Amino acid sequence: MEQRVTLITLGVADLGRSRAFYEALGWRGQEVEETVFFQAGGLGVVLWGREKLALDCGLDGAGTGTGTGFGGVVLAHNLRSPDEVDALLAAARQAGATVTKPAGATSYGGYAGCFADPDGHLWEIAHNPGFLLAEDGTVTVPDFGSL
Amino acid sequence: MEQRVTLITLGVADLGRSRAFYEALGWRGQEVEETVFFQAGGLGVVLWGREKLALDCGLDGAGTGTGTGFGGVVLAHNLRSPDEVDALLAAARQAGATVTKPAGATSYGGYAGCFADPDGHLWEIAHNPGFLLAEDGTVTVPDFGSL
Repeated sequence: MEQRVTLITLGVADLGRSRAFYEALGWRGQEVEETVFFQAGGLGVVLWGREKLALDCGLDGAGTGTGTGFGGVVLAHNLRSPDEVDALLAAARQAGATVTKPAGATSYGGYAGCFADPDGHLWEIAHNPGFLLAEDGTVTVPDFGSL
Repeated sequence: MEQRVTLITLGVADLGRSRAFYEALGWRGQEVEETVFFQAGGLGVVLWGREKLALDCGLDGAGTGTGTGFGGVVLAHNLRSPDEVDALLAAARQAGATVTKPAGATSYGGYAGCFADPDGHLWEIAHNPGFLLAEDGTVTVPDFGSL
């Protein structure tokens, strides 16, 4: 596993409110399918519904709120092929992680699974052909043609 | 506020266990004062005691566990001067953030304060003269001379 983070996704209760907050601080992002993407240096900061984020990581509905075990943040580590996703999830399990979502095809045409580290911090391990991954591991949020 | 993240700090229950987990995945970091720093591309990933992290952000002891409001993750945004810290905290409050810790001198010889965004996601806004901040906002974890 290379030492890098591709995306930081923050689970939010009200996407419009959260987007307006970061925009008031000068950030500019793109909204697509009820998700806001900000390019933040070599990674992306993403705002997405808290419950959808938890479910997407394989947590059940009871684990999605504030004051539950779900911290509301997911880190993503993107890789260059589905095989690399399988290999990293296997290595993480071997190292003591809990695989919360086995790898599988994603709605965006990629391949991803999730694990929780020993403290429950969640990582999505993904191959996403739509997100350009540079040689150095930095990612460029694509131009979705939206504002 | 520039669109960038300087550090991602993960609150952990057992620093040795957490460090061993990431090292089993191939990461290499430095431990100093019960804190582990990993260089992760242009930012740092940090492991620190969950309760210390929460208290450092101005949350009280009751808000530090899993299953509380504290998600266990803090993002840091480092700036080039104490004045910039004051200005950003004021802007965040104006935008609707809750300042959980007013800016002040830190144990590491810097100046920092914290806010919670509308969903409670915590940001530390810091000037840390020990962490080199490049023109493009990427950070280099210093060589602490430790392993």
